Amino acid sequence: MTPRLSARGLSIPASPIRTLVPLGDEARRRGVRVLHLNIGQPDIETPPAFRERIRHLEEKVYAYTPSGGTAEYLGALREYYACLGLTVGMNEVIGTTGGSEAILFAMNACTDPGDEVLVVEPFYTNYAAFAAMAGARLVPLTARGEDGFHLPGREAWERALTSRTRMVVLCNPNNPTGTVYGREELEAVARFCKDHGLFLVCDEVYREFTYDGHSAPSALSLPGYEELVVVVDSLSKRYSACGIRLGCLVTRNRDVYNAALRMAQARLSPPGLAQVAAAALGEVGPEYTRAVVAEYQARRDMLYEAVSAIPGAFLRKPEGAFYFVCRLPVLDAEDFARWMLTDFQHEGVTVMVAPARGFYATAGLGGNEVRLAYVLHRPDLHLAVRALEAGLAAYRKTRGLVVEAVATAGPDVHVPAEG
Amino acid sequence: MTPRLSARGLSIPASPIRTLVPLGDEARRRGVRVLHLNIGQPDIETPPAFRERIRHLEEKVYAYTPSGGTAEYLGALREYYACLGLTVGMNEVIGTTGGSEAILFAMNACTDPGDEVLVVEPFYTNYAAFAAMAGARLVPLTARGEDGFHLPGREAWERALTSRTRMVVLCNPNNPTGTVYGREELEAVARFCKDHGLFLVCDEVYREFTYDGHSAPSALSLPGYEELVVVVDSLSKRYSACGIRLGCLVTRNRDVYNAALRMAQARLSPPGLAQVAAAALGEVGPEYTRAVVAEYQARRDMLYEAVSAIPGAFLRKPEGAFYFVCRLPVLDAEDFARWMLTDFQHEGVTVMVAPARGFYATAGLGGNEVRLAYVLHRPDLHLAVRALEAGLAAYRKTRGLVVEAVATAGPDVHVPAEG
Repeated sequence: MTPRLSARGLSIPASPIRTLVPLGDEARRRGVRVLHLNIGQPDIETPPAFRERIRHLEEKVYAYTPSGGTAEYLGALREYYACLGLTVGMNEVIGTTGGSEAILFAMNACTDPGDEVLVVEPFYTNYAAFAAMAGARLVPLTARGEDGFHLPGREAWERALTSRTRMVVLCNPNNPTGTVYGREELEAVARFCKDHGLFLVCDEVYREFTYDGHSAPSALSLPGYEELVVVVDSLSKRYSACGIRLGCLVTRNRDVYNAALRMAQARLSPPGLAQVAAAALGEVGPEYTRAVVAEYQARRDMLYEAVSAIPGAFLRKPEGAFYFVCRLPVLDAEDFARWMLTDFQHEGVTVMVAPARGFYATAGLGGNEVRLAYVLHRPDLHLAVRALEAGLAAYRKTRGLVVEAVATAGPDVHVPAEG
Repeated sequence: MTPRLSARGLSIPASPIRTLVPLGDEARRRGVRVLHLNIGQPDIETPPAFRERIRHLEEKVYAYTPSGGTAEYLGALREYYACLGLTVGMNEVIGTTGGSEAILFAMNACTDPGDEVLVVEPFYTNYAAFAAMAGARLVPLTARGEDGFHLPGREAWERALTSRTRMVVLCNPNNPTGTVYGREELEAVARFCKDHGLFLVCDEVYREFTYDGHSAPSALSLPGYEELVVVVDSLSKRYSACGIRLGCLVTRNRDVYNAALRMAQARLSPPGLAQVAAAALGEVGPEYTRAVVAEYQARRDMLYEAVSAIPGAFLRKPEGAFYFVCRLPVLDAEDFARWMLTDFQHEGVTVMVAPARGFYATAGLGGNEVRLAYVLHRPDLHLAVRALEAGLAAYRKTRGLVVEAVATAGPDVHVPAEG
């Protein structure tokens, strides 16, 4: 008898860009240069201090580290938080394998199978996979592009609440929308959580990436909410070190800390070589981050201006992270994304975009939206924007969309989503 | 309102040695040398080829790798399996963050919350944590020290079966018992699984560590069981590289592979620096493994002989891995383990042992057993054995056990477990 995959195994969603990857490979084989606006892999250099530690590693035995992380790594993290004005005790932070593991630990500690997790859509698509792994159900509240994807009001939160609701996950600054929630906005959600005995899990991996004077307050800075806040953090974006897989979970809730530590003990330790590199994070001065953020701001400006100028495209100015979600004058963004790879090139270049449908849990939403990442350096970003614009015009002609779009162009265009 | 930890969060077991660690630290502060027989951290050097790759790393951006692992790492793994006579296709192996993540992926793919997992106790204690994370229930079948902890017969498996049973987890060679299951023994379990449509998850991370002509056949080598076998593997022990956190999941079951790959995509990639090191695994010749295994065999011989000679201790000769479980002439092995750290030293030395109770799911079992690891080099192992022997004699005097133990000593002694 052949055993059958679990319902959970079936329910773990595929990456929304997965089907595009072979099409991109195919385009490259045809000699087309594929520029990636779909992924969050920065081209910024990992700090030399990290790389020096690795190149000078003298260890002869690559041994387990403590399950919660080495004293050096945890010490460096605590100093980092202290510089932000956040006092994090030794027993309030656990080193994790990327922010990903911290999210999984938080979901496991805060929910039982069948429990519900409130999340604002569009959301970081992998939350759905972690919820599936935990056997929890993601319940989406929809944010609107017209509001710059800012958080819905209290009544929407109350409406979504059931007896199984256990936690809220927020990502601030937001992937995929680039929205930054300010203190009042954040505190309103925290108050909702406190009123109903829910955990507030804040994914703050883009903390420093804010523009135009916006800033993303850490949930750790909210007085009176210590018992319900769990912060998920990562070195991936902050230090352009995605591949080392190192992050942390921070909480003042003793029970959550202890449960997360027991999970950490079960998987033995976070990646050791990564911790060797990251022990140098105290040597990475604020000038590194300032330069990185300035570079992203310049890229955002370029991509935002170019996309805003496309007739029928719509977005509000992104405030942080290095992504945004925008509406395109197409009926089906997935079809458009595929077509760009299979049927189009502009002076030898095309672009891969991430259709936004996978960032929504509500069926039918996001069908004419894409997430664009601005992690290419500016000359390539410039080429990518030109190819995107030319591709859109050509695609609309091919699909017979030109007349309709002219009729409905403008910031309030509503092209109905397909399927 | 303060939110409450989930029942799952509460149920994740603490590491069985966790309470001993502060006692060990305390002993060290008193100037006592604490030798560790409790942990599986080898003192063997990580292969120089791994370390050279790390020291010569030129990458300037530590970027995400493919979610399933780099082509170099996967290629090296496939060659490793080919040398064992196992053909592993490109779409049959996924790089994981240690064997730990492979176990979690397997549990998530094969069970839904509430499903049951059959496991032979004593078992690798962290299976219980991964089952708790997956919301699955571990159902133990008890192996007996008198049988060298070999697998129970078919009727025991049939008795344990319910409508919720979905998978069997075997560890071969076994941690904690050091038992090696031969081909017939393994195939009998595979047949049971096939007859009932269960998955067979085999943790084979100690594959090469077998002694006295024993060998541990891979479940991948059983013809006719391709659809139900999932192998969990790790570089940690084989290459003494525990800290890099790199392993893999191997399966010919398409559904399990796809589900595991989607989970892998959700967490983005396995540790990248680890994969840089491990890409050199093809350069590590069989002489490295031969020397390592010979060293462990010599340590096993020393520890086995010494412990066997302790009056009232009982074990069968361990066949593989680098642990064994033995019965000691005490009423409560946890009390003994603590006492060794708080009240004892022999010429400035004491030892930390792992009480075996945490390796059982059935309450009351393992109370007078410990797991001993032989990962110290021989001079230290010699000191450790002498301290253990002297400690046992002194402890038994302190606890008034001397007369009773003399009366019941021998291989069949049954000291009742406490509590």
